[in-house]
Amino acid sequence: MPKEPREVVIVGGGVAGIFVLRNLFADKDKVPGGLHITLIKREKSGWISTCGLPFALRGWYELERTEIQKPGFYLEQGIDFRSESEVTKLNLDAKSVELKAGENLNYDYLVIATGRKQSVKETTLDGVFTFNDENDACKIEEALKTRNVQHAFVRGRGIIGLQSAVAFAERGIKTTILGGPPSLLPSSLDPDIGDIIKERLEKDGMRFILDRREITAIKGKADWVKSVVIGETAADKEEIPAEIVIIGKWMLPETDLAKAAGIAIGETGGIVTDRAMHVKRGRRSLTEVYALGDCVEVVDGITHRPKLNQMASTAVVQARVIGDNILSDILSQPRLYSTCEYCLSPTVADIGCGLLIGSVGLTTDAATRAGLKTISGKATKLVKARYFPGATSMTMKLIFDAFTLRLLGAQMVGEVCVAERVNEFEVAIRAGLTAAELRNMERSFDPSVAQLEDVTVDAAKKALESA
Amino acid sequence: MPKEPREVVIVGGGVAGIFVLRNLFADKDKVPGGLHITLIKREKSGWISTCGLPFALRGWYELERTEIQKPGFYLEQGIDFRSESEVTKLNLDAKSVELKAGENLNYDYLVIATGRKQSVKETTLDGVFTFNDENDACKIEEALKTRNVQHAFVRGRGIIGLQSAVAFAERGIKTTILGGPPSLLPSSLDPDIGDIIKERLEKDGMRFILDRREITAIKGKADWVKSVVIGETAADKEEIPAEIVIIGKWMLPETDLAKAAGIAIGETGGIVTDRAMHVKRGRRSLTEVYALGDCVEVVDGITHRPKLNQMASTAVVQARVIGDNILSDILSQPRLYSTCEYCLSPTVADIGCGLLIGSVGLTTDAATRAGLKTISGKATKLVKARYFPGATSMTMKLIFDAFTLRLLGAQMVGEVCVAERVNEFEVAIRAGLTAAELRNMERSFDPSVAQLEDVTVDAAKKALESA
Repeated sequence: MPKEPREVVIVGGGVAGIFVLRNLFADKDKVPGGLHITLIKREKSGWISTCGLPFALRGWYELERTEIQKPGFYLEQGIDFRSESEVTKLNLDAKSVELKAGENLNYDYLVIATGRKQSVKETTLDGVFTFNDENDACKIEEALKTRNVQHAFVRGRGIIGLQSAVAFAERGIKTTILGGPPSLLPSSLDPDIGDIIKERLEKDGMRFILDRREITAIKGKADWVKSVVIGETAADKEEIPAEIVIIGKWMLPETDLAKAAGIAIGETGGIVTDRAMHVKRGRRSLTEVYALGDCVEVVDGITHRPKLNQMASTAVVQARVIGDNILSDILSQPRLYSTCEYCLSPTVADIGCGLLIGSVGLTTDAATRAGLKTISGKATKLVKARYFPGATSMTMKLIFDAFTLRLLGAQMVGEVCVAERVNEFEVAIRAGLTAAELRNMERSFDPSVAQLEDVTVDAAKKALESA
Repeated sequence: MPKEPREVVIVGGGVAGIFVLRNLFADKDKVPGGLHITLIKREKSGWISTCGLPFALRGWYELERTEIQKPGFYLEQGIDFRSESEVTKLNLDAKSVELKAGENLNYDYLVIATGRKQSVKETTLDGVFTFNDENDACKIEEALKTRNVQHAFVRGRGIIGLQSAVAFAERGIKTTILGGPPSLLPSSLDPDIGDIIKERLEKDGMRFILDRREITAIKGKADWVKSVVIGETAADKEEIPAEIVIIGKWMLPETDLAKAAGIAIGETGGIVTDRAMHVKRGRRSLTEVYALGDCVEVVDGITHRPKLNQMASTAVVQARVIGDNILSDILSQPRLYSTCEYCLSPTVADIGCGLLIGSVGLTTDAATRAGLKTISGKATKLVKARYFPGATSMTMKLIFDAFTLRLLGAQMVGEVCVAERVNEFEVAIRAGLTAAELRNMERSFDPSVAQLEDVTVDAAKKALESA
């Protein structure tokens, strides 16, 4: 008698859900009886490159290009890809999920990839948007095309806020960013590094308001936004013209379904998983229920405390681990089993003006909050000799534990190869490299692509001198 | 009574000697009584960027540009910079060196940076050159400018041979490279990776002869070379036209002075040092005599066997360590003392056609010779999504220990950020990262500069599948 196919139900079709689907699909022929994969997502789209949306707004390509695969692509391959569909309940004991449309789907393996949600309530005024997904991007693009937008206002000084502000500024729109003190991208960059970007973007006409004021009113004219009021007291108050407003504040994990099913939620508000990405109910890991992506919390690689990372790069690794473990379980092959490492939050982002920022590990502030005493060194240098093409400048800051001198974090601003350097420092943090080791490590050299003494060496030297 | 300045004598003015000088000079004000630094070099020049010479031949800039500092620059700062000068004897017991000009210089610290020498005897025929230093480069440049050079012949398939061949080919000269089997750059690249470059350069008209044949005759016309004969038997023999010939064979450490002074020479022919770069006489380290650069042997980071590395990147780290240790000794401050790590030979080289090769750790062949069984994975992928500018391709090969699955070596061919990736893998080898860890490591992501699943992940996956 032929075996029945195994049922996998994936709830959510962002990068997290899509990558679990991709990994399982690639391995489906290894499963006797086959795999039947169902993916349920609210949106109409297939696989969207969410991280690609800001570049579409910046005009690098059409918005449609961010839909890497349409639902039809998956349907043709026999995947039960259900867009514009919603799960209303997880029945963990019965191993089934209930759909809004009334249907009940049984599963052998359940994957929760419900993503995140905006932490602010929306306004009814047109022209005020969040920027979380492709629907938001479409609305923003539409507004820019049909309205005479001359002023933009962005609430949020994180990557989403900054990248949408850059898109507006590059289109010649006078743009204001409101965020808390003291500086930009505070979860990735120390103030001295964040200020480098701020000053550069100010030169291009962007305005930053980084203080404690909040939006106190959004004013409109004929249902469309025309200005934002910040501050409460007469002295504080300011009215800033804006024909478009983006609310890019911190996102919360979307955990309503998980919570209702009794799945453990951590102190950060994200779903708790073990290293294999199984969820927990009470103290027990559920070996057939996984969660990943923006809805889960991860464990920081230095402080060993839970945190929200909410980056596509994290989700992709978690998806790999989940693919491994479902296959390992079905085939009873423990050698396929795999686990996630602690998270060091390697980050790179294009923030306009040809600049990339990079960050990994702890900022000085995060280290201090974790009770670690730090020293640091900062240097700016060309990435290769001046007379070679592409000799651009890079600023690097390295943060070390003051006692062991081990690397805790690295931050940089440059024009090229920032992602690769971030990855190097991620390995260096994992390896426990010290300032002296980083300073004395041999680095590959060819004058057309590197300096004999890299900016890393200079930064490590300065840190040692301050020790 | 004011203290006498300490005397440091540096023998040799290549990158190795120059960097010791630079490091000591930067620290000279920390020394009570001061430092008196003497550098003695045979050549006329100051600080030459030897690694920059091939790019000058390729026409990226004038040859003069490779002289980063002239001797006058150092003389003006009070350094006794003696170009066109030669040391004939090291008197280690008397702590002095004898100069050819007859003078005797006393030292408190001696630094031997005598470099390397060509392993082949020269021909008397004009048009046959080695390519080791700026004098060679000048002669080659002169020949190219004044002679009607239509054919070039290069003996040597290492980086020097290849980079000079690229310079000729880029000038429209029909170029032949002769080297041993089986492939290019064998100390850095496995044959399958070396062949990628070979095929690419062949498309541009370069010819490679990679077999056991040797040069059996060099023929001339009116004292200038006109052809090279390779092979011995009638079946083997071939006469190849060449109006310029480069003999770019392996260089030997220049150790005559050290040997004559009784300093220990290792099995590779290089000077033996301890981790602090002190030389040895018998079993004893001489704490006031240092050696570095192409004349010393280093210890391989994986096999723990001595080898010759002869790269500027190695010399620069050694120079840093020597600077630290001389200062530590003078000031009696042990905390300044530093040591060199094992050498993992991180390498990057521009080899024309916009291609960079990168390598670190052991090749498959080197691992096999060291008794290690390996597995490997290879992948080719765009470095970012196709619709982003600069989405070029990268081929990567990762070599792992077959038992522990720890990374032993990495090789790559690509157009961008190769140096930075080599450095990442160097840290990964040091850290003992396994194939599974590399596959599951989070990597920084932004679609404008990276893929969600990097070529590294693909290569590690393939290696695991072969395990």
